[in-house]
Amino acid sequence: MSAEPRWLSGTEEQAWRGLLRMHDLLVSRAGRSLQSRFGLSGTDYTVLAELTRAADGRLRMSELAQVLGWEKSRLSHHLTRMAKRDLVAREECADDRRGAFVVVTPQGRAAITAAAPHHVADVRRYFLDHLTPGQIALLGEIAELVVRKNGAED
Amino acid sequence: MSAEPRWLSGTEEQAWRGLLRMHDLLVSRAGRSLQSRFGLSGTDYTVLAELTRAADGRLRMSELAQVLGWEKSRLSHHLTRMAKRDLVAREECADDRRGAFVVVTPQGRAAITAAAPHHVADVRRYFLDHLTPGQIALLGEIAELVVRKNGAED
Repeated sequence: MSAEPRWLSGTEEQAWRGLLRMHDLLVSRAGRSLQSRFGLSGTDYTVLAELTRAADGRLRMSELAQVLGWEKSRLSHHLTRMAKRDLVAREECADDRRGAFVVVTPQGRAAITAAAPHHVADVRRYFLDHLTPGQIALLGEIAELVVRKNGAED
Repeated sequence: MSAEPRWLSGTEEQAWRGLLRMHDLLVSRAGRSLQSRFGLSGTDYTVLAELTRAADGRLRMSELAQVLGWEKSRLSHHLTRMAKRDLVAREECADDRRGAFVVVTPQGRAAITAAAPHHVADVRRYFLDHLTPGQIALLGEIAELVVRKNGAED
């Protein structure tokens, strides 16, 4: 780059570094609890949550990557590990160029059903309980905006 | 749990799920660029950023885990990989029970110096440019609050 970089201001740095730190801290706290009680990583939980929210418990790989905000390679690696544990299954469709489906298995559904009440309580305890309704709403709006703006660039 | 779980409201869900999705999307975008141009993962960058911000480019493992919001086991695994690539080095101190230091190497410092202008431009392009100064400030405050509240519980 030829021009002098526009380094982040203190406030900008606080937002970006704060986002990374807050995320990693919350995921670490909530993930530790999921792992010790239910043998699920936070990432397993997030994948299962998206699948069980979808009609018939199934999504195309590409849709799932999109809704998670993940690279397809990361998703593919993670699904391989989850499939070995019988939490999800892949359904190839040879005659459909839009790509394979991922479906939650009965065992995956049972795992998230058992974990969900505890996980939601953790999300409240570590995160939502510290914020006002106004802060919660604003954070949701910011996230939605950033996701939409980036999605539109693809 | 005996009582009926307090499931998340739509707004709460938007904040929590939005936080995960926004984070993963931004880390994926910025990380892809770091990896392809500089051979650094986003995580490598974050570790190097914290170390180069510290006096003498060194922090105790425990301080670094705290400031990143990471489990110590995750940090330890990641530092092993970074040390193999000569980006950081560990300094054990046998006579000090407060634990080992991590220090950025000259090669690690050169790597982040080269990557920083591009990375900051990416953070602006994918994230900050979409937000108002008020949103940026609020997000920073929310992150600081959540990190502080959780830190205080330990």
